[in-house]
Amino acid sequence: MKIHGTETYAVPGFIAGGIHAGIKEKGLKDLALIVSAVPSKVSAVFTTNAFKAAPVQLDQERIKSGTAQAILVNSGNANAATGAKGYEDAVSMARFASGHLHIKEDHVLVASTGIIGHRLPMDKIEAHMGQLVKVLHERGIPEAGEAIMTTDKFPKMAYRKGVIGSREVTICGIAKGAGMIEPNMATMLAFVMTDVNMELPVLDRMFKKAVAVSFNAITVDGCMSTNDTAIILANGQAGNPAIKGPSKNLHLFKEMLFGVMSDLAMAMVRDGEGATKIIDIIVEEAKSTGEARKIAYAIANSNLVKTAMFGCDANWGRILSAAGSSRISLPVDKVQLFFEDVPVFTNGQGMYSHKNELVKIMTADTVRIRVKLGMGKKTFRVRASDLSFDYIKINAHYHT
Amino acid sequence: MKIHGTETYAVPGFIAGGIHAGIKEKGLKDLALIVSAVPSKVSAVFTTNAFKAAPVQLDQERIKSGTAQAILVNSGNANAATGAKGYEDAVSMARFASGHLHIKEDHVLVASTGIIGHRLPMDKIEAHMGQLVKVLHERGIPEAGEAIMTTDKFPKMAYRKGVIGSREVTICGIAKGAGMIEPNMATMLAFVMTDVNMELPVLDRMFKKAVAVSFNAITVDGCMSTNDTAIILANGQAGNPAIKGPSKNLHLFKEMLFGVMSDLAMAMVRDGEGATKIIDIIVEEAKSTGEARKIAYAIANSNLVKTAMFGCDANWGRILSAAGSSRISLPVDKVQLFFEDVPVFTNGQGMYSHKNELVKIMTADTVRIRVKLGMGKKTFRVRASDLSFDYIKINAHYHT
Repeated sequence: MKIHGTETYAVPGFIAGGIHAGIKEKGLKDLALIVSAVPSKVSAVFTTNAFKAAPVQLDQERIKSGTAQAILVNSGNANAATGAKGYEDAVSMARFASGHLHIKEDHVLVASTGIIGHRLPMDKIEAHMGQLVKVLHERGIPEAGEAIMTTDKFPKMAYRKGVIGSREVTICGIAKGAGMIEPNMATMLAFVMTDVNMELPVLDRMFKKAVAVSFNAITVDGCMSTNDTAIILANGQAGNPAIKGPSKNLHLFKEMLFGVMSDLAMAMVRDGEGATKIIDIIVEEAKSTGEARKIAYAIANSNLVKTAMFGCDANWGRILSAAGSSRISLPVDKVQLFFEDVPVFTNGQGMYSHKNELVKIMTADTVRIRVKLGMGKKTFRVRASDLSFDYIKINAHYHT
Repeated sequence: MKIHGTETYAVPGFIAGGIHAGIKEKGLKDLALIVSAVPSKVSAVFTTNAFKAAPVQLDQERIKSGTAQAILVNSGNANAATGAKGYEDAVSMARFASGHLHIKEDHVLVASTGIIGHRLPMDKIEAHMGQLVKVLHERGIPEAGEAIMTTDKFPKMAYRKGVIGSREVTICGIAKGAGMIEPNMATMLAFVMTDVNMELPVLDRMFKKAVAVSFNAITVDGCMSTNDTAIILANGQAGNPAIKGPSKNLHLFKEMLFGVMSDLAMAMVRDGEGATKIIDIIVEEAKSTGEARKIAYAIANSNLVKTAMFGCDANWGRILSAAGSSRISLPVDKVQLFFEDVPVFTNGQGMYSHKNELVKIMTADTVRIRVKLGMGKKTFRVRASDLSFDYIKINAHYHT
């Protein structure tokens, strides 16, 4: 893996950029554009929230064609709960971009993130479109990554390079997260660009699998947003023989894609609002993946567990209690609980013989909780952030 | 309603008391006993957590007889996740009490609250039983109420008096709550005493209905505990003609019982760990009570909503988003959202014409959120606490 500053965050056949258009205050970048040299294959996953923001509604229609060429994103305003006018605004945003880029209007996707319930400042977006298109360049992905941030403390970017069919293939992704990261990717945006040559159904299947084990296996506060969007564009410029189905080449691509998306997901948890550490929860020996998942999320979203982790307290009682509250019948005498490899609960009672080891484990950057249910063979793993004073500060003071 | 200091908190035919037995530090009361002069009819509701604490397991067996005469409660230690030995400890606790009280051992119920995973200090409990029995008196209910507290800032008591069948009937309840109050009464204990004369099946049905609309319609942090217990003892000493089924007398009793239990539930929310206000959430026009309940709890347990309420911010976007995340399909254009009677979202978009009124509403002790779904006629109401810096402080610093 080579890293040479921002050079790495470039994908052949893509240009990108980000500028301040006046949606956010203090001159912060708030408008990003990603453009492929040619129409690309596209796959996407969106929020399942009943209140889908206007850009999500628009994109859901447009990706049905399987083709897109550009993504225009603003931060500072979610264009959510804005009614029919909001939908028109999303359409207009895309039209501004297509006009300046001279590409098909319905090949432009849009995304928004920020405050809910306010109309977008369309005059500002229109007035800055020319400037935005001018700053696009091959190494501009990090600028786009910066322009999609809201309460994020740092931009989230990841990439992988590999050789597929003797051609170099690149995957690069940017994302924003911070609050509301939960099943189905709450208040998160992620855009992945690749030059791989791959048939659409294969790309679509692979991207959805990757979302399931990355963005849909993390949580910050258990909340789901109106705007969650993850999109991949594949422009085929690497020139590898088209990947049409299961094969060594698909496997190579899958490893790269999962790597990029896991990196982005981990960065989101690490940057969860107010997060001081990652809680890595692995539920094993479940009867089904669904049950493992339910128990893992019950632990991950328990405020009592999250505050105990913030307080560096090996409070396994709260973990047990959270697991037990998931309405899944558990064999109490068989359930085992570990922090890293240290057993703290087994045979229906607590163990207290590893105090010094636990102190070290609890004060680390990542705390791994392993729950063995003794019921079956299925596993689910979720990464969560802890719950700190700063979460309250950020979210109580973020005013509408 | 007469209130004469602690005189009010007395029920004919009951004695109670609370002492410090050395389970908690600083001389705080930690052992409570409630005793009826005669064996009483009993009904109870317990946690649905898979990890039921030992006292819950014991009581579930004992209440099957429909008769109980005393309840012994300790705070400071939950006797949960303590295995077979913990169960023996619960049995021993009851035996200590029955020995000193000279009543049947299986007419004694027990309850515990506090830290999970540690054996009870049985020597201390045994050593203090004589002292506890000695302090029992007719006006001792408030002392028992104090002895069951954990992180509670104040004891929770409520009572009603009324005339049923020309006899004065009294109902008095004590409770502890603070953290983990959610569906199924997480980490809460409630004990209700009454002298009403009523047949067991009627009492049982009425008590369960009362739990549903009181303790099971509040939430602090969405967590459910291993120890939740609500018990009612009815000793018949009022001498009213036995209530055998639907009647004017049953209706009178129901009003009184619901009143006592609602008062206790409200006190728990008001004292939710770190709570600065009550969020009163009413979901109307749902297709079913179940759906109304699911949406109400999605809002009530959203950390983003709770922090916005703490910050006095009329952030209806977060409320909508929480409602939308409950996986129930909603008619976006018909959904209406109000703070008290002020509309903030209607026809698919926000309304911004009542700024001054909203400031007043958001800074009140109780903030009422009304959501009209436009789908049907069913309603559910839940009261929640907000999420503040103090919740984090209390729960990050409460060490095992």
